[in-house]
Amino acid sequence: MKLGTLKNAANRDGDLVVISRDNSRAVRAGHLAPSLREAVERWDAVAGPLAELAADLEAGKVDSFAVDPHAFHSPLPRAWQWVDGSAYVQHVILVRKARGAEPPEDLLTNPLMYQGCSDAFLAPTQDIPHGDPSWGVDFEGEVAVITDEVPMGVSAEDALKHIKLVMLVNDVSLRGLIPEELRKGFGFLVSKPASAFSPFAVTPDELGDAWRMGKLHRNLDVTYNGAFYGNADAGHMQFHFGELIAHAAQTRVLSAGTIVGSGTVSNEDTRRGSSCLAEKRMLEKIETGAFKTPFMKPGDTVRIEMRDDAGASIFGAIDQKVVQVDL
Amino acid sequence: MKLGTLKNAANRDGDLVVISRDNSRAVRAGHLAPSLREAVERWDAVAGPLAELAADLEAGKVDSFAVDPHAFHSPLPRAWQWVDGSAYVQHVILVRKARGAEPPEDLLTNPLMYQGCSDAFLAPTQDIPHGDPSWGVDFEGEVAVITDEVPMGVSAEDALKHIKLVMLVNDVSLRGLIPEELRKGFGFLVSKPASAFSPFAVTPDELGDAWRMGKLHRNLDVTYNGAFYGNADAGHMQFHFGELIAHAAQTRVLSAGTIVGSGTVSNEDTRRGSSCLAEKRMLEKIETGAFKTPFMKPGDTVRIEMRDDAGASIFGAIDQKVVQVDL
Repeated sequence: MKLGTLKNAANRDGDLVVISRDNSRAVRAGHLAPSLREAVERWDAVAGPLAELAADLEAGKVDSFAVDPHAFHSPLPRAWQWVDGSAYVQHVILVRKARGAEPPEDLLTNPLMYQGCSDAFLAPTQDIPHGDPSWGVDFEGEVAVITDEVPMGVSAEDALKHIKLVMLVNDVSLRGLIPEELRKGFGFLVSKPASAFSPFAVTPDELGDAWRMGKLHRNLDVTYNGAFYGNADAGHMQFHFGELIAHAAQTRVLSAGTIVGSGTVSNEDTRRGSSCLAEKRMLEKIETGAFKTPFMKPGDTVRIEMRDDAGASIFGAIDQKVVQVDL
Repeated sequence: MKLGTLKNAANRDGDLVVISRDNSRAVRAGHLAPSLREAVERWDAVAGPLAELAADLEAGKVDSFAVDPHAFHSPLPRAWQWVDGSAYVQHVILVRKARGAEPPEDLLTNPLMYQGCSDAFLAPTQDIPHGDPSWGVDFEGEVAVITDEVPMGVSAEDALKHIKLVMLVNDVSLRGLIPEELRKGFGFLVSKPASAFSPFAVTPDELGDAWRMGKLHRNLDVTYNGAFYGNADAGHMQFHFGELIAHAAQTRVLSAGTIVGSGTVSNEDTRRGSSCLAEKRMLEKIETGAFKTPFMKPGDTVRIEMRDDAGASIFGAIDQKVVQVDL
């Protein structure tokens, strides 16, 4: 099934809705759980009734309304936890080269992951704030999963069972601020502001054979300022989602509603383009000696989406514009 | 006023209560806001009625019950955000020396701060999990504040107005895992598991003259295995809480209920002891050439508390024991 969250000015968690397979119709599910957050927190009790409602929606047995993408917030407008991996080795190598840093020696055996801010995500079509050109605003197209409660010390295999929903994310990154911040040694804080997620989160069964061994084997379509930018295969993860979850849970329980990200989708085949500006810039530098593509300026737009075999959008689109904000 | 949160097995946010000044009596405040989290999210509407209830409690005008410290969770059992500064320069210098790392060059002008995990805090008297001796479990006694919503780009001075509550924290740290994790470049993840907070969070006015210019000028009493361990003056912050909040809010809004920590309280005067084991170990190394004090083992206990001029506990005590967990 596909779930989503309608914006609600009176409730930051928003209102839970079930979405039809073709993304055209929705039905409110507030009688089952007020919000997606609360649904995930008692998933075992709620998933069944939600699936029945989804079946009734497909069968035209319930009153539904037309989907308006702008009415949707991120599936979890705020979350108790957002941890983001960096499981595409090609991305790590290129981005570290771009800022003159070395990849960790154990890149292939020990997942890279950071604790992100989760208090207030952007909506899928919400503007990305741009405070100053020195920020170097970039997008990062990724896959993410939502878990139920994960026990401390879980194995990578058992961790897979805790994945309840899958979605896409634009992990907004401020490239101009990252080098100085990471040099201080404590990771990202101001250089990774609020991310945005795809309007729809779907259960793994909805992905069919494309979801196997904890990876999503489909292309991530990235469109930048209306033109093709990338369609890398998201299946090329060095670590699958079970391994990423197990990494985060080594020393603590992960609460229900934890979001785990894949890191920027990236392939070695450069014909597949990129899912962030930093990689393209580094490839330019390698090829020509100079960075050419600038970071995002006010007015620039990015669209991130994933399609099934029939070309239909699975998660709906993240479609954002950068706008200047006064500080 | 003093606020606290009773554990509630059916609700992870717990139940809001108001505490008497002398920490002896409590009254439920669920009719004003179900939880402290929800109270902070609509603070302007709720703070007045809560203060009235606190006055009625002091005057003996409401039915109250005796405080049982073990019934209390951390004031926010889970939060949308926990960012922890490192505002005591002496701590940064000693701890980095202990792990053979240099302090950042701009230590005195640019706050150090990390994004911590906030999905499931420990209760003030909850056991600290110890999975393996290689973890190197340590405590860190700190001061923390809870904010309402903070606008992006707030000034340090304006940020002070967003501090609604003050409390203490034990920022549990796994010293054995920190060097490798920080070497990877993405900050703390598995090396900073769940923290615990003092049972009571108090409004700044409750602190009188000890709260001035965004710093809490009182000693932090730390007792380790029943013996004196430290009583450093928490007022020695290089950056006040307004500066820490402004640092975090440079590129994004901070949601209501954000917790900002001071970092481990530390003074240059070594007679004041320490607020974590790592500092004492480094001082031993400097003096004798060898680390002597081991990190926490199962059975070790730490108590963190702060007293007013009359010797009364302001926030109640964090009082925790380390226990072995099976992984």
